[in-house]
Amino acid sequence: MTPDEFRATGHQLIDWIADYRRDIARHPVRSRVAPGEIRAALPAAPPELPEGMAAVLADLDRLVMPGVTHWQSPRFFGYFPANAPLAGVLGDLVSTGLGVVGLSWQSGPALTELEEVVTDWVRQMVGLSEAWSGVIQDTASTSTLVALICARERATGFAMARGGLQAEASPLIVYVSAQSHSSVDKAALLVGIGRDGVRLVPTDEAGAMRADALDAMVGEDLARGLRPCAVVATTGTTATTALDPVGAVAAVTRRHGLWLHVDAAMAGSAMILPECRWMWEGVEGADSLVLNAHKWLGVPFDCSLYFVRDPQHLMRVMSTNPSFLQSAVDGEVKNLRDWGIPLGRRFRALKLWFVLREGGVAALRARLRRDMENARWLAEQAAAAPGWRVLAPVVLQTVCLEHAPAGLEGEALDRHTLRWAEALNASGAAYVTPAVLEGRWMVRVSVGAEPTERADVAALWQAMQEAVGSAAA
Amino acid sequence: MTPDEFRATGHQLIDWIADYRRDIARHPVRSRVAPGEIRAALPAAPPELPEGMAAVLADLDRLVMPGVTHWQSPRFFGYFPANAPLAGVLGDLVSTGLGVVGLSWQSGPALTELEEVVTDWVRQMVGLSEAWSGVIQDTASTSTLVALICARERATGFAMARGGLQAEASPLIVYVSAQSHSSVDKAALLVGIGRDGVRLVPTDEAGAMRADALDAMVGEDLARGLRPCAVVATTGTTATTALDPVGAVAAVTRRHGLWLHVDAAMAGSAMILPECRWMWEGVEGADSLVLNAHKWLGVPFDCSLYFVRDPQHLMRVMSTNPSFLQSAVDGEVKNLRDWGIPLGRRFRALKLWFVLREGGVAALRARLRRDMENARWLAEQAAAAPGWRVLAPVVLQTVCLEHAPAGLEGEALDRHTLRWAEALNASGAAYVTPAVLEGRWMVRVSVGAEPTERADVAALWQAMQEAVGSAAA
Ligand SMILES: Cc1ncc(COP(=O)(O)O)c(C=O)c1O
Ligand SMILES: Cc1ncc(COP(=O)(O)O)c(C=O)c1O
Repeated sequence: MTPDEFRATGHQLIDWIADYRRDIARHPVRSRVAPGEIRAALPAAPPELPEGMAAVLADLDRLVMPGVTHWQSPRFFGYFPANAPLAGVLGDLVSTGLGVVGLSWQSGPALTELEEVVTDWVRQMVGLSEAWSGVIQDTASTSTLVALICARERATGFAMARGGLQAEASPLIVYVSAQSHSSVDKAALLVGIGRDGVRLVPTDEAGAMRADALDAMVGEDLARGLRPCAVVATTGTTATTALDPVGAVAAVTRRHGLWLHVDAAMAGSAMILPECRWMWEGVEGADSLVLNAHKWLGVPFDCSLYFVRDPQHLMRVMSTNPSFLQSAVDGEVKNLRDWGIPLGRRFRALKLWFVLREGGVAALRARLRRDMENARWLAEQAAAAPGWRVLAPVVLQTVCLEHAPAGLEGEALDRHTLRWAEALNASGAAYVTPAVLEGRWMVRVSVGAEPTERADVAALWQAMQEAVGSAAA
Repeated sequence: MTPDEFRATGHQLIDWIADYRRDIARHPVRSRVAPGEIRAALPAAPPELPEGMAAVLADLDRLVMPGVTHWQSPRFFGYFPANAPLAGVLGDLVSTGLGVVGLSWQSGPALTELEEVVTDWVRQMVGLSEAWSGVIQDTASTSTLVALICARERATGFAMARGGLQAEASPLIVYVSAQSHSSVDKAALLVGIGRDGVRLVPTDEAGAMRADALDAMVGEDLARGLRPCAVVATTGTTATTALDPVGAVAAVTRRHGLWLHVDAAMAGSAMILPECRWMWEGVEGADSLVLNAHKWLGVPFDCSLYFVRDPQHLMRVMSTNPSFLQSAVDGEVKNLRDWGIPLGRRFRALKLWFVLREGGVAALRARLRRDMENARWLAEQAAAAPGWRVLAPVVLQTVCLEHAPAGLEGEALDRHTLRWAEALNASGAAYVTPAVLEGRWMVRVSVGAEPTERADVAALWQAMQEAVGSAAA
């Protein structure tokens, strides 16, 4: 494709995206295709000869679009907000257009230094002290994996330089809560610790980790000759945005020299609001934390911010220094390959930079406050309506709901819940995610897509009531 | 940013990228900024209020561009080709514009199924049998990490479900060659195996792993009660594109039940050429392999293809199934979160699809053949020129060179090499990467940027001769 051909199709696609976003509310939110339908419609073999962009764009509309679930829709209330504001789309376009790969400082000085600067901007925005240094990872799953590898190496005095985990006599133990995200459990297993080394700390009625129970478990494990290694506390759990008491947990980890990783993947965005900072009070006592800018904050996926207090330790764990990556300036610069698992890296700082500069931080704060108010409004409607129950405190933008008609309980209630959620999602009017809370299915409404206004939440509430009626019928 | 504002700035940026690519040869290839220069020019704090896109675009030109090293330049011969063809830029633009996150099939059916189809297209293009299934990872570093975690779990009969690595009595051993990429060593350490468990298998004079030496080492380790676990063979090493004998290595791994991972990150692209397939002969005997579509093949970074023969095993290692990700169709669909470390994923298949359809496979083959011919041409010039030496067979597109004036050897020769390479890179005329081969510095010329034609290679050869002259002066 020549630059001029790129110009022609590029302008077309810019308009295509602008139209898509403008008209997005017209689509059924959840894709309606059946499993295998798209695969079956695509050629089994690659084209030998050029097909021309007109054919590709036609197939984009005809084959791909029906298979898209519209995360950017104002009626998307599933999973969590994964906002991709248009300014961020442009920042990412520049990144791909430049085609720089950040293997080392020299291979892209701007890539490295802009990332240093914008991650530091976010640090300031969420009220973290200067003791933290940030880097962009792809996802919170990866960030948490990196954290637990660093924890493993600190606990073992850098076993990877010797015999690795197997040469360690006393088994390492990681503490999480039953409400932790699945990526936390996965990370603990991937680093080699194993199921027997993962402790589920009990939670209180609000879903928060009990620091006293953690303390007791650590004590018991020590008494049994095991080696407590790390605690993962969550600020804003996936199911209910429950808040582990970071300060109280940090007191335990400090006393016993454990690594504290804070998973604020979802709720970290809210820390740009001073009135929310109590939610992770004590966070300065952590060793690492993750905050997904690609969720509620609104930087196009992937943009997970990983902050650490001891970058030297991170670099010691992650660094490699083959000759072909060495350069004369190595002592003076940051080589981001030493801050995570991948060697190559995209120029991801651009999309963060575009979003923050285009909108400004004040506008972000206003948007997040709007979403929290909308969530509270929905919770109020449900709390006042017969048959409906709000199942968890609405501290942020997630509302956990149940519709329990008189006499319905247990598995019958579960069936009712799943039926009305499916009716709602199948209608295309909105998208919500069912999830299990204390053994029972409920429906999570995750407010916070960029275009979601009060009218959309009101429409959702209306559609939920209708879905409940149709499910009962 | 409204859709209409997006339209205006989007069109501007499409033209900006088209102009950039058209005029790219005008830039000095390697950025000339000093360490810290860009950071110092950027505001220390984020903007409270909107700044407007005009300001952002002005800063893009003024602050960012001087800090870009031009990987897409026809005179870029550093590291490896990381082609980002313009069709791929457009595919990625669509991905970001849609803003879909592939947590599960349902959250983006097209994202999942197009990825299934296009990874299968690449499988066919490189001549792999139907026994392989592919998935897109971010980088080869991550793919190799995934491979070694899978190897660890197969060797231990799934220790992660029990006591993890620590509960295993006999130490696991991983075999790599001294010419393996640094990411292989890093992965072995990250999975918890440790330095003592990583064996460097000796290589022959062409830099290829010696299968007989591997066999002997495995035998010795078994005799000592250790547990050989995995071998990583490289098809196309980073320094010299040396080729480990995959078939002979596979015979050893088969005999002893070891995992065989093939790192074809760079050279895998060449397997679209039937005449190159001998280079990984025996690859069907491997368990996993990685091939970076984001290198020579030319899909914008990140797009690393990871192929496995036993997807059930991969899914068993990587799967998580929290309630909020469950859906009614789970038995019938592929959930890509179970194929790697991250939960969230971009719609990366689009860029691969755009590139393959826009150009067709025949054009890719022609481009790769052009690059190999250009590399051979350069090697011939150097071989015929007084003082110059070609240090390794040119099997693909990498030429390893030395300029050794009479009487210069040892560290003096190293200094000369580094001096002329730096003179060349500092001139801006081209970019090459020095690297160490058998204890001595040499210069790698990695041919294969998309716009690089014979005239560019001829200009490089001219510039190298001038650099040598100026370094000697
Ligand atoms: C609390 C929490 N942690 C981790 C994750 C995982 O995020 P990612 O997809 O970036 O790995 C999520 C969201 O899915 C989350 O809500
Ligand atoms: C042989 C080989 N393996 C692995 C890599 C690492 O690639 P990535 O940046 O995708 O991790 C490279 C290139 O840098 C390579 O040449």
